[in-house]
Amino acid sequence: MTLTALCPGTFDPVTNGHLDIIERASRLFDRVIVAVVENPAKDPLFSVDERRTMLKESVAEMENVEVDSFAGLLVAFAKRRGVGTILKGLRAVSDFDYELQMAQMNHRLADVETCFIPASPTWSYLSSSLVKEVARYGGDVSGLVPDHVLARLGEKLS
Amino acid sequence: MTLTALCPGTFDPVTNGHLDIIERASRLFDRVIVAVVENPAKDPLFSVDERRTMLKESVAEMENVEVDSFAGLLVAFAKRRGVGTILKGLRAVSDFDYELQMAQMNHRLADVETCFIPASPTWSYLSSSLVKEVARYGGDVSGLVPDHVLARLGEKLS
Amino acid sequence: MTLTALCPGTFDPVTNGHLDIIERASRLFDRVIVAVVENPAKDPLFSVDERRTMLKESVAEMENVEVDSFAGLLVAFAKRRGVGTILKGLRAVSDFDYELQMAQMNHRLADVETCFIPASPTWSYLSSSLVKEVARYGGDVSGLVPDHVLARLGEKLS
Amino acid sequence: MTLTALCPGTFDPVTNGHLDIIERASRLFDRVIVAVVENPAKDPLFSVDERRTMLKESVAEMENVEVDSFAGLLVAFAKRRGVGTILKGLRAVSDFDYELQMAQMNHRLADVETCFIPASPTWSYLSSSLVKEVARYGGDVSGLVPDHVLARLGEKLS
Amino acid sequence: MTLTALCPGTFDPVTNGHLDIIERASRLFDRVIVAVVENPAKDPLFSVDERRTMLKESVAEMENVEVDSFAGLLVAFAKRRGVGTILKGLRAVSDFDYELQMAQMNHRLADVETCFIPASPTWSYLSSSLVKEVARYGGDVSGLVPDHVLARLGEKLS
Amino acid sequence: MTLTALCPGTFDPVTNGHLDIIERASRLFDRVIVAVVENPAKDPLFSVDERRTMLKESVAEMENVEVDSFAGLLVAFAKRRGVGTILKGLRAVSDFDYELQMAQMNHRLADVETCFIPASPTWSYLSSSLVKEVARYGGDVSGLVPDHVLARLGEKLS
Repeated sequence: MTLTALCPGTFDPVTNGHLDIIERASRLFDRVIVAVVENPAKDPLFSVDERRTMLKESVAEMENVEVDSFAGLLVAFAKRRGVGTILKGLRAVSDFDYELQMAQMNHRLADVETCFIPASPTWSYLSSSLVKEVARYGGDVSGLVPDHVLARLGEKLS
Repeated sequence: MTLTALCPGTFDPVTNGHLDIIERASRLFDRVIVAVVENPAKDPLFSVDERRTMLKESVAEMENVEVDSFAGLLVAFAKRRGVGTILKGLRAVSDFDYELQMAQMNHRLADVETCFIPASPTWSYLSSSLVKEVARYGGDVSGLVPDHVLARLGEKLS
Repeated sequence: MTLTALCPGTFDPVTNGHLDIIERASRLFDRVIVAVVENPAKDPLFSVDERRTMLKESVAEMENVEVDSFAGLLVAFAKRRGVGTILKGLRAVSDFDYELQMAQMNHRLADVETCFIPASPTWSYLSSSLVKEVARYGGDVSGLVPDHVLARLGEKLS
Repeated sequence: MTLTALCPGTFDPVTNGHLDIIERASRLFDRVIVAVVENPAKDPLFSVDERRTMLKESVAEMENVEVDSFAGLLVAFAKRRGVGTILKGLRAVSDFDYELQMAQMNHRLADVETCFIPASPTWSYLSSSLVKEVARYGGDVSGLVPDHVLARLGEKLS
Repeated sequence: MTLTALCPGTFDPVTNGHLDIIERASRLFDRVIVAVVENPAKDPLFSVDERRTMLKESVAEMENVEVDSFAGLLVAFAKRRGVGTILKGLRAVSDFDYELQMAQMNHRLADVETCFIPASPTWSYLSSSLVKEVARYGGDVSGLVPDHVLARLGEKLS
Repeated sequence: MTLTALCPGTFDPVTNGHLDIIERASRLFDRVIVAVVENPAKDPLFSVDERRTMLKESVAEMENVEVDSFAGLLVAFAKRRGVGTILKGLRAVSDFDYELQMAQMNHRLADVETCFIPASPTWSYLSSSLVKEVARYGGDVSGLVPDHVLARLGEKLS
């Protein structure tokens, strides 16, 4: 059988921490679908199209990774795409309770499993919102996001 | 003496997890007052009246349970009702620190005690906000809330 | 109905933190049974008889509190004594997961409920094992345990 | 490619919580190797052979699951078996820090990944050690372990 | 060398918990700079000037403590002031993950260290937001903030 | 004034994670005393003398760091050495509750303060006991401890 994992997220914007998880997922599974949550409630800095574009550029060299996006329920999207496994990175204990709650709800709603892989220690402190906060105040976030994302952050926040 | 417990919450809307806690409280204490926090800051989906009505329907068969509502400080309401014990369900570690902080503040403000009972494992992933989020996107939340709440959720979100 | 709570513990020895919980329990319930776990696995410093004696002296002025002890399963003891509610103090998040696990197991085994009340901030750092460790090395633990316990600790460790 | 997951544990004895994780793993991966840690330090109740036998009986109907055992380093065993993915169940936040530490160490030692799947809420309070403790004192653990394990527990503890 | 610590915060308003941390910091370091985050995103109750004034009045008798304020990145302010050590109070486990993330980011951005000292048990449940919430509903917060802050809270909320 | 920090630990053996904390402490304070806990209860692999020797070799180039050892209460040793500040590294949330409890007890016993600095992400998964466990089974721990410690580990465990 072909084993596919779905990596959902807002990716506003994608960071090197996300890419570490996606790259490791691409070695654990036959195929990985990175799924951008359209998620209007969160008022993202980048549009869905921009977030998809940045992701596509970032995963261009990972052959078994594709980028998609969805609105609505994650499990409905998983069913449409025929995927039964969600894969997420776990950074810290404080992520755990919420992610566990979502995983158990998604299991009940649609018999979808959620697998977690621990974030690399190198990126354990990294999040999109922290990157944006630092960049907004003129801090240097190079090395925390890919260079092309760094450029777009600069344009957007100037 | 007659031992009464106060079960406060937003109940927007009441879930089967809340009802499990209330039902168990009704066997631990002589009398239980379920108290709807009016709480305009949270911008609830249902009005206080709707939330009270759904609760009353849900606890109709628990003879020693009554439903009330309040604005302002919980401890002031407890004093007005002559109750010295607050009872809350605890689902996860991430609830714990905040609830502990509130319990210690309420103890200092008015010598009111807070008791916690652990959520049943069956409902440990359940919250009103998750139910609303799933229902809003067309997910099936039957079995997670009473049927009459399911019907009202459908009307409200359609 | 008469509401009784069971407060189990090793009490090796009883501390002012335990007594704060027991005293508050005695105001929440009609009757409180403090139950010393005989617990040979833990290799306690004081014998069951000594631990019971120290507890009895400590709660002598709380009229609705009695002291007992048991070996074996807590829920079996609760059934023998006709009590359906266990009451425990919670000090810290790290206590929480273990206590939750025990509470859910006890609920399954015998339909016994566990209520938790938060430790007073004043005693949040206090445990029997820390008291023994400090006393063993000659540290001053007066004010952390009742005076008669202080005297017995001195005798035992000299 | 054939995706294999390694599920290590002491399994002293296997519980219904373990079997839930193994069964779900067998649907996520092409093949699952359940690996009994020989682990003399922990002084297990059952011998490695007994633990392997109980596991084999328990997974007899899961076609892509095999049972093995190992002494020494988990990552060395994974290399010998040619497996790059460890899969573990996560029950509670208090498991998380230790498991994260082990996962990061194993990643460094041998480039082995660890995936976590959340325990089912039904079994979140279940552990081998709690089962043994309850059974030792005569508590009823039927429904928490397979029937053949129940029988062996009875023999061992009588 | 002269060792200086920077104590940043919103201080909206300063509480007795903050003052306990600042006073202890003033005994650990040669000099302490209390830095008010201007932080327009949080929509504070008091203006930066009011928050600075209340702090200055509160620390008037601590000779090695000065009050300043800043907008933008904390580490940029630390560099401008020539300080390499940030000092913060830690109240609860739930603070820990976020503070750890910020500390590691600040270390990467500017080689600034963050030291944590545990809140006194007496004030472990105290926060500016809880004080404001209680005061807003007419609860008595005397003893939780200095008297001059109590007076200003009364004026602001009446 | 001269600011001194005390860094206590079992150091059985010292790891690169410990050295990262000690080195950062030596830049935060005028002087650092690394204090080996003699601690017979823990049954260490290395003797106190061996642990002191390995530490001394490891910190030889940090001019303001000295190595000492003690038995008994940490706060009594701190008083004898005239130090009022204990400095510890914090790796994970699960360390936090225990360390907080000890810090509050030490504050009560002897008015000694405890400062925590977060472990570097690089070493967040590292502990002496994990190093010994891996080395015991023949795993490669080079890069996790200084080379001279690696050599001694090899001798001790062969």
